[in-house]
Amino acid sequence: MTRQLRLALRAYGVGGPGQHSLWKDPRVPKNASIDIDWYIAQAVAAEHARFDALFIVDSQFIDATYPPHYLNRLEPLTLLSAVATHTRNIGLVGTLSSTYNSPFNVARRFASLDHISGGRAGWNVVTSFDTGTSRNYGLDEHLDYATRYGRALEHVQVVRGLWDSYEDDAFPASGDVFLDPSKLHSLDHVGEHFRVDGPLNISRSPQGQPVIFQAGVSEEGRNLAAHVAEGIYAPGGSLADSRAYYSDIKRRAAALGRDPSHVVIFLGAQPVVASTDEEAHRLSREIFEADNDFSRKLAQFGRAFGAHDFSVYDLDAPFPDVAHLAEKSGRTRGASIVSRAATVGLSLRETVLEFTRYQPSPFTGSPSTVASAITSWFSAEAFDGLNVGFRTNDDLSAFVSDVVPLLQKSGLFRTEYAHDTLRGHLGLPIPANRWSVAS
Amino acid sequence: MTRQLRLALRAYGVGGPGQHSLWKDPRVPKNASIDIDWYIAQAVAAEHARFDALFIVDSQFIDATYPPHYLNRLEPLTLLSAVATHTRNIGLVGTLSSTYNSPFNVARRFASLDHISGGRAGWNVVTSFDTGTSRNYGLDEHLDYATRYGRALEHVQVVRGLWDSYEDDAFPASGDVFLDPSKLHSLDHVGEHFRVDGPLNISRSPQGQPVIFQAGVSEEGRNLAAHVAEGIYAPGGSLADSRAYYSDIKRRAAALGRDPSHVVIFLGAQPVVASTDEEAHRLSREIFEADNDFSRKLAQFGRAFGAHDFSVYDLDAPFPDVAHLAEKSGRTRGASIVSRAATVGLSLRETVLEFTRYQPSPFTGSPSTVASAITSWFSAEAFDGLNVGFRTNDDLSAFVSDVVPLLQKSGLFRTEYAHDTLRGHLGLPIPANRWSVAS
Repeated sequence: MTRQLRLALRAYGVGGPGQHSLWKDPRVPKNASIDIDWYIAQAVAAEHARFDALFIVDSQFIDATYPPHYLNRLEPLTLLSAVATHTRNIGLVGTLSSTYNSPFNVARRFASLDHISGGRAGWNVVTSFDTGTSRNYGLDEHLDYATRYGRALEHVQVVRGLWDSYEDDAFPASGDVFLDPSKLHSLDHVGEHFRVDGPLNISRSPQGQPVIFQAGVSEEGRNLAAHVAEGIYAPGGSLADSRAYYSDIKRRAAALGRDPSHVVIFLGAQPVVASTDEEAHRLSREIFEADNDFSRKLAQFGRAFGAHDFSVYDLDAPFPDVAHLAEKSGRTRGASIVSRAATVGLSLRETVLEFTRYQPSPFTGSPSTVASAITSWFSAEAFDGLNVGFRTNDDLSAFVSDVVPLLQKSGLFRTEYAHDTLRGHLGLPIPANRWSVAS
Repeated sequence: MTRQLRLALRAYGVGGPGQHSLWKDPRVPKNASIDIDWYIAQAVAAEHARFDALFIVDSQFIDATYPPHYLNRLEPLTLLSAVATHTRNIGLVGTLSSTYNSPFNVARRFASLDHISGGRAGWNVVTSFDTGTSRNYGLDEHLDYATRYGRALEHVQVVRGLWDSYEDDAFPASGDVFLDPSKLHSLDHVGEHFRVDGPLNISRSPQGQPVIFQAGVSEEGRNLAAHVAEGIYAPGGSLADSRAYYSDIKRRAAALGRDPSHVVIFLGAQPVVASTDEEAHRLSREIFEADNDFSRKLAQFGRAFGAHDFSVYDLDAPFPDVAHLAEKSGRTRGASIVSRAATVGLSLRETVLEFTRYQPSPFTGSPSTVASAITSWFSAEAFDGLNVGFRTNDDLSAFVSDVVPLLQKSGLFRTEYAHDTLRGHLGLPIPANRWSVAS
């Protein structure tokens, strides 16, 4: 089967990471990030354009330095449940931390969303890494990196086990038999991190199990992704970086005996589309300049090191010794920064400026330029799909009305939904219930 | 101000406690308990009748002996978020266990529902008491009774503290100021059971904070209710029992310095309405006989003792020694059973038959009989409101079209909504933000 492009919409509230000034845009409601109608409108627009999924990011810690969208946000599962009944086809992927939610609760909530949406739920598994978050849950420090990922793997396995509590034909509901008790199974899981008996008190949905998403970047993160992810949010970067990540993940999955096409890799992107390439680049630069504030960048920069406060250092002294923080957070961004600063001998100020410098999206330009770039990156196996984010409804509309039709015309992207589940859209099989297989 | 009757609808799926055969009714979809449209239809009907709230019960443990509605159910917060965008006025009360959900997650989820619904969320705080549930969360045994309630009280206090993280005017969103940082507050709670720093990453809704509901029955439960509950689900029983419970709770609240009218007591009821009293009583008996199965009753009976398995005992021997289980569960039903069996010298079989005998609802009869009974119980201060449950949409329709108008005609129940928040409906004040008060 020919590879088909996938498109997900990363929902936007009052901007995203690093966007502090978007709330001043008259087209953006000041309370957009807690306005359910704002999200429903995005989902409806994306579904009208035949997108695969709506994706909701999340975070559990703030202080006053965080960008507006972080400060005041809806919780993903409640948000997506409300969106579900106003859409019919689009997938609904929510972020939830495996570190701060018990497997039984996670399994229930996504299974419930999966029923409410008729088989369109996806769980983006994150492990949460900053100290601020851990202190909202009674811990002094976040779990160390290896424990966090080992625990995450076991967590996902328990959740999947709970999702199979009922076989698909467990409820004949005929004659005198509502439930066939032989088709209800306890899990009786006893592992290193969890003990969960089950069974779960909800049946499987039309797609069998919600789809597992993950954003594996570090070594352990990539291994987790290769083991359990069916959708992946890739870190982005250059074409070469993206191709390297893509082939690495597919290779790891294949080495574990998985079909690499059942690991769908989405690259995060914020396309900037205008009538001409020049206009798009001017707009892109304008967006950058609107938030080009050094003290905010310094705060955001610290988040690659577990929300470390860099304002305590002399900006013009050599880059401080924070390698242990980068390692602890388990994200490669911190490690790259430390390595680059040491190799070139940069000051803190120089390092921050370099890592927050202007880097226009590779998908910036006129509609045909953007469509061509998407096509060539896709063909080069830099991604299976894009997870696109926008600043305003106007930006989404421009992409949908001017770029998507070009992708459809070239046969890269669907013109009609062929399925009504998220697994269907992504070409993922319905996992057979483990008990039905066994018997 | 004259006391006004409140009405809540206890949502129904495929029956309720003890109802095993309702799925055979051709008017009930076999998958009703996981069908979001089924719940939306109930909410819309109840809102049309100007009900105060829709109430969603919950449980986290099943085995094959449980009634159909328990076996396969939606999770309350996802369910209510979906219902929220299809209604405009009715309150939305969801059950969530304080024992198995962290305060930060509880605070976020209800605050999110509160924004999605425009200020209509309520949290029914339960502590969960059976061993099966604890084993779904990695514990061998449920927490003992005193710990569970002490922990619940602190849990609610933390959640309320988190709900006040932002003062109401924290987001001026004008000039250059999106957030006024002086109006964002950490909680920095350190208590016996929880340590939670905060702040919460979501602002207060139009009703300030979601409404706290509780169902306090035991001594500790009543104290918890008197301390923190704004709505109470009362245990039911005779008119004398209900009046005694009502006055006890109001007295305890007053003794703690609270305004007793700010503790709204709902009595659970399943009215059976027909064209004549005789017809209603015939119907009521028919409903009882449909599920009059001893082995199922035995299983349900065990739930008053933490889901204890009574099938291991000789049915005709004296009632077994399970006083320790009744005490551990912290519910008074178990203790009443033990005491009655010992006093009269009943066998297990006799005890089960006595405590599961036919007891028609006091609200059984023709529309005028039912309306009169409601009026007289209300006037006698047996309750401030009823939390009515039904078996089918037909039963709800009969109540709404034939009984509610009589209650409206007598001035007991509203004909139009005067408010659009749950606090407004229940006559509860909007709690002032603790930080605004302090400054």
